[in-house]
Amino acid sequence: MSEERVKFVLDEPEIPTHWVNLMADLPGDAPPPLIGTPPTQQPAGPDDLTPIFPMALILQEVSAEPEIEIPEPVREVYKLWRPTPLYRARRLERELDTPAHIYYKYEGVSPPGSHKPNTAVAQVYENAQAGVKKLTTETGAGQWGSALAFACRLFGLECEVWMVGSSYDQKPYRRSMMETWGATVHRSPSDVTEAGRSQSAHPTGSLGIAISEAVEVAAQNADTNYSLGSVLNHVLLHQTVIGQEALAQMAMAGEEPDTVIACVGGGSNFGGLTFPFLRRVIRGQAKTRFIAAEPAACPTLTRGVYAYDFGDTVGMTPLMPMYTLGHGFVPPPVHAGGLRYHGDAPLVCGLVKQGLVEPRAYRQNETFEAAVRFARTEGLIPAPEPAHAIRAAIEEAEAAREAGESRVILFGLCGHGHFDLSAYDAYLAGQLEDPEFSEDDLAAALASLPEAPALA
Amino acid sequence: MSEERVKFVLDEPEIPTHWVNLMADLPGDAPPPLIGTPPTQQPAGPDDLTPIFPMALILQEVSAEPEIEIPEPVREVYKLWRPTPLYRARRLERELDTPAHIYYKYEGVSPPGSHKPNTAVAQVYENAQAGVKKLTTETGAGQWGSALAFACRLFGLECEVWMVGSSYDQKPYRRSMMETWGATVHRSPSDVTEAGRSQSAHPTGSLGIAISEAVEVAAQNADTNYSLGSVLNHVLLHQTVIGQEALAQMAMAGEEPDTVIACVGGGSNFGGLTFPFLRRVIRGQAKTRFIAAEPAACPTLTRGVYAYDFGDTVGMTPLMPMYTLGHGFVPPPVHAGGLRYHGDAPLVCGLVKQGLVEPRAYRQNETFEAAVRFARTEGLIPAPEPAHAIRAAIEEAEAAREAGESRVILFGLCGHGHFDLSAYDAYLAGQLEDPEFSEDDLAAALASLPEAPALA
Repeated sequence: MSEERVKFVLDEPEIPTHWVNLMADLPGDAPPPLIGTPPTQQPAGPDDLTPIFPMALILQEVSAEPEIEIPEPVREVYKLWRPTPLYRARRLERELDTPAHIYYKYEGVSPPGSHKPNTAVAQVYENAQAGVKKLTTETGAGQWGSALAFACRLFGLECEVWMVGSSYDQKPYRRSMMETWGATVHRSPSDVTEAGRSQSAHPTGSLGIAISEAVEVAAQNADTNYSLGSVLNHVLLHQTVIGQEALAQMAMAGEEPDTVIACVGGGSNFGGLTFPFLRRVIRGQAKTRFIAAEPAACPTLTRGVYAYDFGDTVGMTPLMPMYTLGHGFVPPPVHAGGLRYHGDAPLVCGLVKQGLVEPRAYRQNETFEAAVRFARTEGLIPAPEPAHAIRAAIEEAEAAREAGESRVILFGLCGHGHFDLSAYDAYLAGQLEDPEFSEDDLAAALASLPEAPALA
Repeated sequence: MSEERVKFVLDEPEIPTHWVNLMADLPGDAPPPLIGTPPTQQPAGPDDLTPIFPMALILQEVSAEPEIEIPEPVREVYKLWRPTPLYRARRLERELDTPAHIYYKYEGVSPPGSHKPNTAVAQVYENAQAGVKKLTTETGAGQWGSALAFACRLFGLECEVWMVGSSYDQKPYRRSMMETWGATVHRSPSDVTEAGRSQSAHPTGSLGIAISEAVEVAAQNADTNYSLGSVLNHVLLHQTVIGQEALAQMAMAGEEPDTVIACVGGGSNFGGLTFPFLRRVIRGQAKTRFIAAEPAACPTLTRGVYAYDFGDTVGMTPLMPMYTLGHGFVPPPVHAGGLRYHGDAPLVCGLVKQGLVEPRAYRQNETFEAAVRFARTEGLIPAPEPAHAIRAAIEEAEAAREAGESRVILFGLCGHGHFDLSAYDAYLAGQLEDPEFSEDDLAAALASLPEAPALA
């Protein structure tokens, strides 16, 4: 046992020098985002995004280059926590009595505690280069808002965050964390925006509402831009440092993953871990299964429709081609706040549509059961979002045991649960809610879909 | 800038194989602990400790060997987070405009979030080897209780924790963390022990009271032992993995520290970082200054007396030779709960007495000012305890700037502040209390000193 490796650690110079742009390798043309209301809908071009994004990020959004160089000042900040460790979950394997080898890539070592600063730092840097003074954003569980607050402080920008009401109430210390880094935090729906006032009937809020609020303020102020923590191509692009490091670390371990698993809310964690592995599959260099784990209370990929829909609740963003439950859907306040989103990244949705990625949905209680099992074997207490990936990984490991096959499973542990312990409290006390999503819920949600061209 | 190192990372095989026992290198004989009340006081021997400690730990407590091998199962658990990173604080240096080079050793990457599991794992292992079924302990800020809960879970022991009342109220999620790992947590003073009931007049509690409660339960149950998170020789011994790694990492950086700084409550973090460096000084191999940073509200080393005193409030432990404010002293509820202790490790106190270590005390608000400054430059949000070390490091870096000298400063960042954000909230709102410690407070505290032989 003494020579068994638990951690695979890269050195600072091994931080990736480029991001992986999967767009360049995707077969066929992706459907474009659309601007405007019918019948005047047109494909959105770079100019349509300039009111809220700097041109450098817009160019990344539409780039067809397979790799994009990481600016040196961004890489310099990455050194504060990257490369992140890859673990072999030997204790969990023994607990499950499985022949499977389970690996996890841990992003919780960043100061904000998740993968989110990988893109926050890149976005703040480009906005600072463009002379922007302030960024606005929404945050669900608080992970993204914390990451943007952290990154803004390092580059000297102001930061204003709309935090989804249910998370604001569940996680007061996420707000304190953002304020420690100097950000201003509003509970969403707030009364400081038109969008917030129009949605005051939703007391728990949602990511869609909070996005509307942050976009509104950015669109109205010339020196203020908006920053999105997921969904868009350039955000997923920035996260590919995760998968590139994981590829190198799996090589150190001398193993090839059979299955790669990540949770998916907006898609940035999923894309960040999987895209470098997916590119190898698309290029015919590897055979790998990919599983996207989502909450059954917000089952976008497993029960949504593939259609054009708005990214926000009020309808200020372009229409995006994605699996969606309808932009009017406000998910129940499950603790995986980062997964409470009616849609998903168009890039990830396209991969699901093509059958390259298999989605699975898990209920809240079975997810926390997996989280506690993980915490009691591996030690780390996971955030509720990656607990969905842990649940899927345990299922896969148990399937390997039943099949009597040694399979290699890699999953993304995208953040720690230090600000989610009230949810663990509720779970351990047997008081955690376990919301269902009925056919009636689905029908009501889909009624909010806008008129738009059908997708193949 | 691109080639500037920020992190110095060791690989898993470089986890130390031995602990450093500074006892073997100390000049002269240390005064022994004493058992009993006058006039029958006798030096405490190994047999006096067997009711609450396993023999393997007692032998470590009194060992004269310069190094003690780390059992392989302990080293195996260390792999879950060790080696920990050493950082060069380049952003803080720039902010301070100092020619000093500032390094910090970060122990917050452990699952419980501090250095405490370094000894928790070692103690639980030896108790498990001895057939013990359950461990009791006290916890101040919750760091130690979390570490013991974590370690007990990994080795299959029960864990029962008395948490100091003021911390229990300030940090509810520390309790949730311990429960997630399966421990039972009481607010101290509790009504489940004689010691707790006798101290119910102290509603905020103290480490001394909580120790009395945990020792009482361990002494009364044959299959239950007590585990202490600091103060004792064997606890400091286990923590020396920190300083050994830091020595190797400073060598990677190609620098020799002029000053090594750590906060001190019971002394385990201080001893863990400094002892491997101190041994080199005692052996004439290096010249290094050592600074022990403590809270001005509990100024044990800076204003206490060097005398025999009890380790707990009720007087159940042996009498130990140390700087103390008197075992009856209940410090005000400052947020650095881990530093609210009337005494300090006899080993550390002896080094202060000999002039090898310089103690300094800091007020709560100036400590949080340093913590926020650090968070806003280096990103990581420190626990209130190591914020005292940060304050001292900033003072030293500013002194270097004024002297126009490039000095090398190393400090211990022994834990993150993810469970301390209510204190940051209060500081940012200008509502943080800043308790003083008057001459009258000192006189009242010292009145609780027991009758005992004088120390030289």
